[in-house]
Amino acid sequence: MSTNEPASPGPAREPSRRSPFDWLDEQARLRADAGLVRTLRPRAADAGNLLDLASNDYLGLTRHPEITEGAAAAARLWGGGATGSRLVTGSTLLHEDLERELAEFCGFEAALVLSSGYAANLAAVTALAPHGSLIVSDAGNHASLIDGCRLARATTRVVPHADPGAVRKALEAHDGPAVLVSDSVFSVDGDAAPLGELASVCRESGAGLIVDDAHGLGVLGVGGRGAPHAAGLAGAADTVVTLTLSKSFGSQGGAVLGPAKVIDHLVNAARTFIFDTGLAPAAAGAALAALRLLRREPARAARARQVAAELHERLTAEGLSAVRPEAAVVSVRAPGPESAVRWAADCRAAGLAVGCFRPPSVPDGVSRLRLTARADLTGAQIADAVRVISRTAPR
Amino acid sequence: MSTNEPASPGPAREPSRRSPFDWLDEQARLRADAGLVRTLRPRAADAGNLLDLASNDYLGLTRHPEITEGAAAAARLWGGGATGSRLVTGSTLLHEDLERELAEFCGFEAALVLSSGYAANLAAVTALAPHGSLIVSDAGNHASLIDGCRLARATTRVVPHADPGAVRKALEAHDGPAVLVSDSVFSVDGDAAPLGELASVCRESGAGLIVDDAHGLGVLGVGGRGAPHAAGLAGAADTVVTLTLSKSFGSQGGAVLGPAKVIDHLVNAARTFIFDTGLAPAAAGAALAALRLLRREPARAARARQVAAELHERLTAEGLSAVRPEAAVVSVRAPGPESAVRWAADCRAAGLAVGCFRPPSVPDGVSRLRLTARADLTGAQIADAVRVISRTAPR
Ligand SMILES: Cc1ncc(COP(=O)(O)O)c(C=O)c1O
Ligand SMILES: Cc1ncc(COP(=O)(O)O)c(C=O)c1O
Repeated sequence: MSTNEPASPGPAREPSRRSPFDWLDEQARLRADAGLVRTLRPRAADAGNLLDLASNDYLGLTRHPEITEGAAAAARLWGGGATGSRLVTGSTLLHEDLERELAEFCGFEAALVLSSGYAANLAAVTALAPHGSLIVSDAGNHASLIDGCRLARATTRVVPHADPGAVRKALEAHDGPAVLVSDSVFSVDGDAAPLGELASVCRESGAGLIVDDAHGLGVLGVGGRGAPHAAGLAGAADTVVTLTLSKSFGSQGGAVLGPAKVIDHLVNAARTFIFDTGLAPAAAGAALAALRLLRREPARAARARQVAAELHERLTAEGLSAVRPEAAVVSVRAPGPESAVRWAADCRAAGLAVGCFRPPSVPDGVSRLRLTARADLTGAQIADAVRVISRTAPR
Repeated sequence: MSTNEPASPGPAREPSRRSPFDWLDEQARLRADAGLVRTLRPRAADAGNLLDLASNDYLGLTRHPEITEGAAAAARLWGGGATGSRLVTGSTLLHEDLERELAEFCGFEAALVLSSGYAANLAAVTALAPHGSLIVSDAGNHASLIDGCRLARATTRVVPHADPGAVRKALEAHDGPAVLVSDSVFSVDGDAAPLGELASVCRESGAGLIVDDAHGLGVLGVGGRGAPHAAGLAGAADTVVTLTLSKSFGSQGGAVLGPAKVIDHLVNAARTFIFDTGLAPAAAGAALAALRLLRREPARAARARQVAAELHERLTAEGLSAVRPEAAVVSVRAPGPESAVRWAADCRAAGLAVGCFRPPSVPDGVSRLRLTARADLTGAQIADAVRVISRTAPR
């Protein structure tokens, strides 16, 4: 966000003394009183000595020359934008290549690329949960899945976090089409959904399963093929997966993977696909370069998991309360929201960028630091990070 | 969309005989019977002899070397992706520059960049229409505004297209905060909203005005500053504008412009901003290059309008029923959906790409060709296009 004096308000009449947006002042005051004001702090291209454990660049690819050249070459060849909806002028052979290779890599019949992971989740949930159907949604799901539920014509039933028994009950109580919607790896705590059990429960009731693998792609499964692949769900007729290209793949965009008939349906029915400009060629090119690099160097996925395990082990050895990571996100509990904010600030002052999550953006009211394990962190960097975090920890 | 045989379905159990997505087969059959199947036809990098009047690249900038180099340079300097939410690691000085220059150019106090125009509309509408408030929404509004209304906690009242009297009535019947939401230029017919009158009506009732200027930016107003600027609304305390960077600016992304307090509120409350990865640097770089080019060569905006006027005049002279264009979209009526599809196909066979809109993606049930006037079309290309369209017209 940037502010400047309005250049020339043109021939506008005197602004009315009371603005229709005056109610925002009260909101701003409430936020300030609660110590919950969010502000943007733009970063420079050169991070200097700051060690980044806050981004979602799990494989450390976003600045890899193959990825940035993939972006640059695609912009040169195809242009700065897709120029229209994917259904009009916005589909290029580059988008087609990306879709084919994503589907192949993750083991699904077909794929569809959208402009963001957010848009992919809105598309999948709204198009697969029509009027009269039921959505069972995990209480810890990402905002974009929640918004998908709110936009869908179906009835939504929120179930306790990672609880296959609760899912079974919700599904049994409904007659008619149903889908279960869940993150594979939950973004706040980095814990994993019990995908195998959830898939069994869905199959018992004939329900579909929509898995958001935003934090699994590139990290979990053989060579980073993702959590559904690791759970034996790749290519299953009843499983649909959503992805983002903005984390492990170091780019921007989202995708839906599944049976060809599901993807055909999305092309015809998903509003965030139909009425949105296609993904920019540079983003498609960067993501495709990341995918090809990962195919060639599959050990990067295991390395991200190893870094996470090492971070967790060392932090725990220092007496900190960290959640055992299932992928590349390591969450460390803080005593409260103020101390979490102070802790993160102290880390930053000591040269370490970490994420800080606190109410209202955490579902469970627990404040924590959120660390991301990048595959390209060295042993020395891990040791440094642990030293800073434990030295600055609120005691 | 691409399909392939699932590589290795892994240790998955036998897929159940009935899939939870079998109901999609019936939907596919209904679409096929109605002749409404949408399919993706990816294009090659070299368009060959095809003349493009279907994209939204109004200024012909998407393949301009300054724009593609803007994308390439940004990817090299900043990386393939933003690496996180704008509130964590996803804000760069490049995003800040783009926001400052967008706000300055369009004459607003502040700006916020999001990953798409769709996301910008969801953000603005949901964050500015809380529980208990009223949204008055034009019947011709874009899908993303409609989804914004559906996601918002407010009550939505849809009013007849471009009808300030109906807006007044709807606003008068409500007590409490209200916003009017309207496209500036409607994407299907290319007609304009009566922004001046709508703003007056809003001021009478103390309602806010949210204008989606996706098709106005770069085309309308002095040097392409957009429809709100042309209507004297730039910098107004009661006006919020949403933009896309994917049309005139030849890139991807969206933005919200308005009073600083509105933008601050979005940073703190808009879910499609907070829980979405920041716009990819390449897209921000391409958009910023387009903005700077347009500042230097403001005549491009007028040229797009002139091409549209010329297309309209010549098509009308050929006896075709075209809507007088207010910006760069020229809509030509077709007798019915089948003949519209055939007409567009005949144009394509003759080397001209045009858009074809028909039910159910048109609000009024009228099928039409949709032509876009690009600022870089030559007189000879305009003449060619008109010749092909009138020669292939259904009689
Ligand atoms: C679990 C999850 N799903 C979806 C998204 C949205 O993806 P994108 O940022 O590509 O819109 C995110 C994060 O941004 C996420 O953490
Ligand atoms: C009027 C209008 N608003 C918003 C959008 C969405 O913008 P974007 O494609 O950048 O998501 C579009 C077209 O795509 C549009 O025509």
